[in-house]
Formats: sequence, C-alpha cells, structure tokens
Amino acid sequence: MRIALDIMGGDHAPAAMVEGALQAAEEWSDTELILLGPVERSESLLTGRRPANLSLKAVEEWISAEEEPVRAIRRKKGSTIVVGCRMVREGEAEAFISAGNTGALMAAGTMVTGRIDGIARPALAPMFPTLDGKGMLVLDVGANPEARPEHLEQYALMGSIYAEKVLGFEKPRVGLLNIGIEEGKGTSLIIDSFARIRELPIHFIGNVEARDLLDGGCDVLVCDGFTGNVLLKNTEGVAKAVFGRLKEELTRSPATKLAAAILKPGLKRFAREMDYKEHGGAPLLGLKGPVVKAHGSSDARAVYNAVRQARRFVQRDVIKGISEELQRLG
Amino acid sequence: MRIALDIMGGDHAPAAMVEGALQAAEEWSDTELILLGPVERSESLLTGRRPANLSLKAVEEWISAEEEPVRAIRRKKGSTIVVGCRMVREGEAEAFISAGNTGALMAAGTMVTGRIDGIARPALAPMFPTLDGKGMLVLDVGANPEARPEHLEQYALMGSIYAEKVLGFEKPRVGLLNIGIEEGKGTSLIIDSFARIRELPIHFIGNVEARDLLDGGCDVLVCDGFTGNVLLKNTEGVAKAVFGRLKEELTRSPATKLAAAILKPGLKRFAREMDYKEHGGAPLLGLKGPVVKAHGSSDARAVYNAVRQARRFVQRDVIKGISEELQRLG
Repeated sequence: MRIALDIMGGDHAPAAMVEGALQAAEEWSDTELILLGPVERSESLLTGRRPANLSLKAVEEWISAEEEPVRAIRRKKGSTIVVGCRMVREGEAEAFISAGNTGALMAAGTMVTGRIDGIARPALAPMFPTLDGKGMLVLDVGANPEARPEHLEQYALMGSIYAEKVLGFEKPRVGLLNIGIEEGKGTSLIIDSFARIRELPIHFIGNVEARDLLDGGCDVLVCDGFTGNVLLKNTEGVAKAVFGRLKEELTRSPATKLAAAILKPGLKRFAREMDYKEHGGAPLLGLKGPVVKAHGSSDARAVYNAVRQARRFVQRDVIKGISEELQRLG
Repeated sequence: MRIALDIMGGDHAPAAMVEGALQAAEEWSDTELILLGPVERSESLLTGRRPANLSLKAVEEWISAEEEPVRAIRRKKGSTIVVGCRMVREGEAEAFISAGNTGALMAAGTMVTGRIDGIARPALAPMFPTLDGKGMLVLDVGANPEARPEHLEQYALMGSIYAEKVLGFEKPRVGLLNIGIEEGKGTSLIIDSFARIRELPIHFIGNVEARDLLDGGCDVLVCDGFTGNVLLKNTEGVAKAVFGRLKEELTRSPATKLAAAILKPGLKRFAREMDYKEHGGAPLLGLKGPVVKAHGSSDARAVYNAVRQARRFVQRDVIKGISEELQRLG
C-alpha cells in the first residue's frame, strides 16, 4: 500500500512529518510512505536514514495556513495538497495525509479527488475525547457549513460505516446533536434530519445534548458543519483554559510545586486522554479515496497515528462500503 | 421596587429560593421580595423570620422541568411562572425571577409579559465565565433556535445596552460567533448578520472563534439560539468532566490526597471563577419587563445574585434604553 504524506503542512512541519513517516515506515514494512515536498528538506531531516519503503517525491509548492482555500488550490496546482489529492484520484497512492490548510485540503479533496457518486457533500470527521477513553467521531466539523437534512443523513451513514470499520466500534451508536433530547426539539434542519436518519439501517440513538458528550454515550455524533466547528473549537478552548489555569495554581508557591510533583503522573495521563493527537487525524468522508487531515499541531507521534488510521481506512475498504450502502438504499 | 420570585423552580427549590430571598431582603431594604408559591411552603422555610420587605403570594400551581413549555403555560395559567410574568406586565412587580423550566419562562415571557415594540424575538442571555473573571454575555442561547439576520442584529443591540447598563462594561466589545475570523466566513445567516451588525452604533469587533472565548476578548457574544445552546452546554460539560477527572486524580492515593490538601484553596478559587452561579441569572432580553432566568442548579447565593441583577435591570432602565434605541434607528 502506498500512502502519500504532505511534509509541508502543520505547525511542526516538516520535521514532525518526516519523523512520523520514518516511524511509520519502520513499523509497517508493507506500506510505502511517499513524502511530498522539497526533496532537500526531507533529505536533511532524514539524516541518512532511508528505509526501503520510504520515498521522496519532489513537490516545490505548498499552501500556507493563511491562504484562502479555493483560490489557493486553483493557483497552486503543483502544491503538496493538490498533488496528494491527485495521486489518490489517479491511483498513484491509496491514501493521502496532510496537516496543512484544512479548507484547502477539503476543497482539493472535493474538486480533485472527487466525491463518491451519490454523496452530496463530504464531511470532516475528527475524533473527540471522551472520559472512557474510547473517543467519539464527530461529523461534520466544517467541510460544509450550510447543511441540509440530506447531508446530515449521509453523515450519519458514513460515520457509522467508518466507526465500525476503522475505529472498531461494534454497532456504533449514532446520535444527532440537538438542544434537547426530546423528538421535535431544535431547528427545522434537525427535525427533518432526525426523520431521515431514523430510517437508516444504523444504530441511531436519537438526539444528544452537548452537555453529555464527554460521558461517552454515543460513538458517532452528527451535526452541521457550523455547529460542529464551534463545538470542536470550544472543547479545545475550554480544555486549554482549564489546564492553563491549573498549571498556574500548581506553580503558585514552593508548597504547590511540591504537590504538583506528586500529582504529575496522574495529570499527565489525564492530559494525554484529552489529547486529540492520540486519536490520529480526521478523515474527509465522502471522497473517492482516503484523504486524512492530521491535526495542525501534529507531532511525530500524531503523524504516525494518522498513518495507522489511513492504513485501516484503505484495508477495511470504507469507501466501497459507503458506495455499496448508498446504492443499496437507492 | 417589587421583585417577584418563583419559589417552586430549580433543583434546590423551594429551600434555596426562600433562603436567597431572605438574604436579599436583608441586604436591600428598598426592595420588596414577593415569593410566589404555596404559602405554607414559604412559611415553613422562613421559620419565623419575616422581614417587613418580604411578602408571600399564594400560588398553588407550578410547572415542572419536564413539562412541554407551551402546553404547560396554556394549561397552567395559575402557575408561578405565568403569574410572575403577568405581574410584570401589569405592574404588580417591577421584575420576575425564576429558576424553573426555561422553555416555559421564555414562552410566558413572550406571550404573557410581551415583547418590546419592534423586537422580533426575545433572547436568553446568560453570562459565560472568562479567565479574566469579568465574564461575557452570550445571546441567544435557546429562546429562538431558528434565527434570522434581523434577530442577530437585535441581539447585538440589546446585548450591548444590557452589558453597559447592568454589567458595567464601558463600550462593550460585541463579537459575532463564527467558524473563522475573516469577513465572509460561515453560513449565509452569519454573513448577512455581520453586514447588519456593523451598521449599528455599538462597538462591534467582528467575528470571534469558539476557541478564544474564555480569553475574554469580547464582552458580548452574538449567536443563533441553537449554536448558543450547544456552546453553553458544551462549556458546562467539558468543565464538569475536567473537574471530575481532576478530583479522581486528587483522591487516588494518600500522597495525592496530601497534595490535594495543599492545592485546595487555589482549586476552589478556580472552581468559583468558572461557576455560572456567581454571575447571577440570565435576562430574557426583548421583553416589556425584566424577567430573569436563574440557573436551574441555583443555591441561595445564586438567588441572591439574581436579585441584585434584577434590581440593576430595573434601576438602569434597560428596557427603556432598548426601546429608545430601536426608535432612533427606525
């Protein structure tokens, strides 16, 4: 299996990307990692290490985090993101991973790799941490801010298939994010989506409230891209703020610093549980090939996890599964 | 000034309501507290204490948290919530406070107290904690899930006036919740709302992302009721989960318990900062009279704070301020 990796996207690019790819190449000898970016950048970071299943593809252009996505992918047809999405479309790679500009990756995924026949909108589907450590797939978180009920219906279907095949959830519990658990609550978008999702051959558990998400009561959470994006960023923001203030308390005096030393192992474990990076990247579901968005702050370990995830995405034939289910439902 | 208080709403009703009212009556001799509920319940909790500025009004019906709001207020015209809203409309009280069924209070506020002329939809506007301790007013969080740009425009105006007059923010910074800070991001609702809000005579700072909310960069956050409700509940859920896991770590062993004892004052201070109850209740903005929703989990102190807030709501003539601004803008 060949997996293309954008070395030029993410806060710690290219070092973390190259290091993560090396770790992945060492772990999985059946997988060829193809690093997209300036060859001399990869080479200087590899410092002579070059497993047989790691290759470099010279790509001299990339899209920065600040660029306007659609304009960027139109102007930079030779950029890592566009090249990676094209490789997947043309079968030069079975999957593509990037930690770069999320909007550009979604746009290139849609316009270059292309949508599965019958899918109206792809969805970006990251994992959220839950207190039981299993995590929860949330989609969409921003690929499509202006959602319609048929989009949410397809998210539910795609999320259920992905959660079962890649994440290993048995009969994943799919919930619909709403402002109350009773049927009939919420906006007309949600009410109409509820009516459609309940007819799908999935394990739909109905409405779920934002208050209960971390308790792990659902495995796949369906929402429109605007709400999902707010949810994702708010969760990050609150967790970061709480940990920040906690750190302040722990370093306030010599006595609290002593207490902090005692608590350190437990707090570290906790911080790791809450860390998105442990869960790999976010698949762009609904495309003709596996495209994975790694977190912008990905370190080498996160890149390694994203490769593991992309491997399963390919091995479990998720895209064929989605296509077949769509055809079956007509 | 007369303030009516529903003693039958909230998780700790009626004890917390009666106790909070007593504290408020003792603090502000110029304010008459009128307790709505079964007189014998109030009397048994007062245990003989009866300040001259505290009176009891016999109301024998109330709406539980589980009841469907609109049906409940139609069927229970003699309930504490409906009676309180009617007292405000008829000038028998200058303000009404309830910690009961939020939907029922919003429905009764709209249908019984009534909207200010020119206001399309009232908004529920609670305070969110921020790390600088000042807090941020968020509206709407669920009074109106199906928002239009003209609603968000009015939220911005009402929120700015309330934040200035009641919360004491000078030239409150008003932000629009969006999935990116650039103009032109987000749904058509947000893009159209942005265009309207920028024309208002307020201090509009543009789009704000959910990630940055706790940093205290804005004083008034405008959003549709669905997104606001999700934001509120997610913030509560994440904070609760993090504190819960922290407690687990602190009580894991004798050593961590010792460490916990050292950290206790700091952690308590932090928990208090993050506590919604410190900030009083959420006004229902856009009604003809001050109606305040106290948090469902209100204790006596939260009720006392809600009274303080209702007093300012009346004293600073917020409703007149909103009406006049609306007329001025035509």
